[in-house]
Amino acid sequence: MSQLDAVLQRIDRDLDASLDRLFALLRIQSISTDPAYKESCRAAAEHVAADLKSIGFAAEVRPTAGHPVVVGKAPNGSTGSNRPRVLFYGHYDVQPVDPLDLWTHPPFEPRIETLPDGRKIIVARGACDDKGQAMTFIEACRAFKAVTGSLPLPITMMIEGEEECGSKHLFDFVRANADEFRLDLALICDTAMWDRATPAITTSLRGLVYEEVRLTCADRDLHSGLFGGAAQNPLRVLSKVLAALHDDQGRVTIPGFYDGVEELPETVRADLAALNLTPEQFLGQVGLKVPAGEQGRMVIEQITTRPTAEINGIVGGYTGEGAKTVIPSKAMAKVSFRLVGRQDPKRVREAFRAFVRARLPEDCKVEFANFADSPAIQLPYDSPVLDKARAALQAEWGRKAVTVGAGGSIPIVADFKTVLGMDSLMVGFALDDDRVHAPNEKYDLTSFHKGIRSWARILDALAA
Amino acid sequence: MSQLDAVLQRIDRDLDASLDRLFALLRIQSISTDPAYKESCRAAAEHVAADLKSIGFAAEVRPTAGHPVVVGKAPNGSTGSNRPRVLFYGHYDVQPVDPLDLWTHPPFEPRIETLPDGRKIIVARGACDDKGQAMTFIEACRAFKAVTGSLPLPITMMIEGEEECGSKHLFDFVRANADEFRLDLALICDTAMWDRATPAITTSLRGLVYEEVRLTCADRDLHSGLFGGAAQNPLRVLSKVLAALHDDQGRVTIPGFYDGVEELPETVRADLAALNLTPEQFLGQVGLKVPAGEQGRMVIEQITTRPTAEINGIVGGYTGEGAKTVIPSKAMAKVSFRLVGRQDPKRVREAFRAFVRARLPEDCKVEFANFADSPAIQLPYDSPVLDKARAALQAEWGRKAVTVGAGGSIPIVADFKTVLGMDSLMVGFALDDDRVHAPNEKYDLTSFHKGIRSWARILDALAA
Repeated sequence: MSQLDAVLQRIDRDLDASLDRLFALLRIQSISTDPAYKESCRAAAEHVAADLKSIGFAAEVRPTAGHPVVVGKAPNGSTGSNRPRVLFYGHYDVQPVDPLDLWTHPPFEPRIETLPDGRKIIVARGACDDKGQAMTFIEACRAFKAVTGSLPLPITMMIEGEEECGSKHLFDFVRANADEFRLDLALICDTAMWDRATPAITTSLRGLVYEEVRLTCADRDLHSGLFGGAAQNPLRVLSKVLAALHDDQGRVTIPGFYDGVEELPETVRADLAALNLTPEQFLGQVGLKVPAGEQGRMVIEQITTRPTAEINGIVGGYTGEGAKTVIPSKAMAKVSFRLVGRQDPKRVREAFRAFVRARLPEDCKVEFANFADSPAIQLPYDSPVLDKARAALQAEWGRKAVTVGAGGSIPIVADFKTVLGMDSLMVGFALDDDRVHAPNEKYDLTSFHKGIRSWARILDALAA
Repeated sequence: MSQLDAVLQRIDRDLDASLDRLFALLRIQSISTDPAYKESCRAAAEHVAADLKSIGFAAEVRPTAGHPVVVGKAPNGSTGSNRPRVLFYGHYDVQPVDPLDLWTHPPFEPRIETLPDGRKIIVARGACDDKGQAMTFIEACRAFKAVTGSLPLPITMMIEGEEECGSKHLFDFVRANADEFRLDLALICDTAMWDRATPAITTSLRGLVYEEVRLTCADRDLHSGLFGGAAQNPLRVLSKVLAALHDDQGRVTIPGFYDGVEELPETVRADLAALNLTPEQFLGQVGLKVPAGEQGRMVIEQITTRPTAEINGIVGGYTGEGAKTVIPSKAMAKVSFRLVGRQDPKRVREAFRAFVRARLPEDCKVEFANFADSPAIQLPYDSPVLDKARAALQAEWGRKAVTVGAGGSIPIVADFKTVLGMDSLMVGFALDDDRVHAPNEKYDLTSFHKGIRSWARILDALAA
């Protein structure tokens, strides 16, 4: 039996214990964007560090100005002239759980459920994003260590706690410690399969600019009977501004927004077209059917290779039960932009702010806050690790791995390239129906099990 | 000394006790629109009924399908062939107190404060609207009773508990008990002075249609990275719909909205112009300066004689701290319309709903709820009680009382006319800076004191 076969067998035998370890991590309420969960985030970091130590990593919980970063180093894995030193990046933080009343079970009490089609799923906040995904890599390392006594490559772990709120403090952390993390290749498990049967390697990621807009008109809330008709209403101003973000073709109207966005090479476009993703397939799973993005673009383009503007939240005025005849003083919106190609996050942010300011009446003041500004990234199609990872995934899943662009952002990945000079190999096992960021988030048991096996195969291939 | 002078002296002497009684009522948290305060609303009703009994009214707390109505009858006041039987209408319920953090003191702990200019004010939720205002009438009755042993007119009290949420159940109550309340004249104290020195009689009230709009797109919240660009976003749809409500001249764009709105007679328009209300005067008090309503209309028209559309609240998506990259499944807005002239509330409601439906993309469903639909009302300028009330107010304030239209609605007043056949005489002592419906609501001590005296004079004049 080959060493890899022994590792894979060990993974199969150890699956129940792997699940126990994942569940322990899922029980920690590490919601990074809400300051109320600061201690839980720290607890999750300590938990991950202890787990890494149990596999032989020299692991530490390293402070930042925000939530800490777990760093684990096993630099003395089997060595060889061709073996790349890899940095595995993941995150232990999760999204908020609201609206809580749409969860069928408490979000931090993980459980295995069986779907009507027989699939078993792990249900909890973070089951997929990213605790479940990150644990596929950690469990693969554990199996190697158990079977061979060492890791197949020198591995450094970086498990952070602020991915869901823009990785705000990780950027400084990476810059300040660049020499520690300037390795040969980054590995990331925070992306999705093409479908349940088809593994995928993500070769591009959209960037993200996330803005909060706060409008103030009158210096107090007003009675709409007394002031209605004369007083400026910030909800009306906000609606006008937000409604102007898209034209009737679904294009973003902010001047300069598309600077740096290039048309796809014809071959890449043909590959995307060959995936034949229909609106019914993609949108049908969430109760929709008509693509809402730029007209004349395939759905796969709309969600991966085209930039977007989305309103993520609005609040203002009276939102409780019944009626209150108020003209509010204030209104707030959260607006984010997915970037592609060479769009400059700072220019997009400033163009958006200018767009808002240009639409404000005299009686309306605005304040902005920024929660993310990362550019898009692209793994070169001729990267040598791409072939190795493709072969490893094909061996595990019995089907050719597709290369795709991902619509979501992983903020730090851009810095891995620009600051550390490393490309990132992104392989993940999420499925489109995982309800990531939504109530009842899940991760297929198969994603978890074969995800661990996939990483074992990839590590073995990279070490060859 | 005339009987009236004796009553006025009694009012002056008894002011501290009057304030104690008002404070006792202000301490009751009778927020009618929020079901959590149901018992407090009942407590307020019981309190008012007990107080009316103490002045000799036969008072009852009468049930409705919602909050109860306090009815008090003193039908055997001094009688005479010309003495009208009057119905006094007020309300014991108040608006919600959010945002609570903008109150400088707890909203249900009334206090007297002294402003930098020496004015004394009563600060509490309901200090003005309508507990303070209603108590001016009740205290005037109390003074008459104390001095003369009876009331100057046959008086029926109707103090309801749902005005702030549209008087939903009062309509049925009035219809079901029309014979009891079909008297000669309604008196109402829920309106404002022209300014601090100038009393006002309100001769018209705008009507109100209040709608809630709930949009649903996907059947769950979505990750904006995975679905952004392809999935319909209800916040985007809502913004487009709400932004379309007004054209760039500030006119409401709903087809048929202005049906039944007539231009003012030239004399009435001239009277309004003579009031010379500048945008600086009216809007400056709340930190604004540019009228936001229909262009080419005076501010006084925008707030009293022209119809409006206002967005009273919007909520959807993530509105907490920090960033969440979500495309929400649902979004909600509350939208209200102030009506004038012969605008039909039901037609306005249906036209609005059609306007919304016409703007929904295929992947967006809508549900509506209605919380108010009352027409505008108008007191004839030749009503004989108008002259008596004007003279009484001039005697108290030393200045001619102006007749104005009010921008706000008192939902039941339309039914007093259509169901009971009664005109309403609306006299109130609110000021524009009373922060009605907003944090730190107040009522000038002078409004309260001279308000009581004003009602004593008006009752005396009506009895003459």
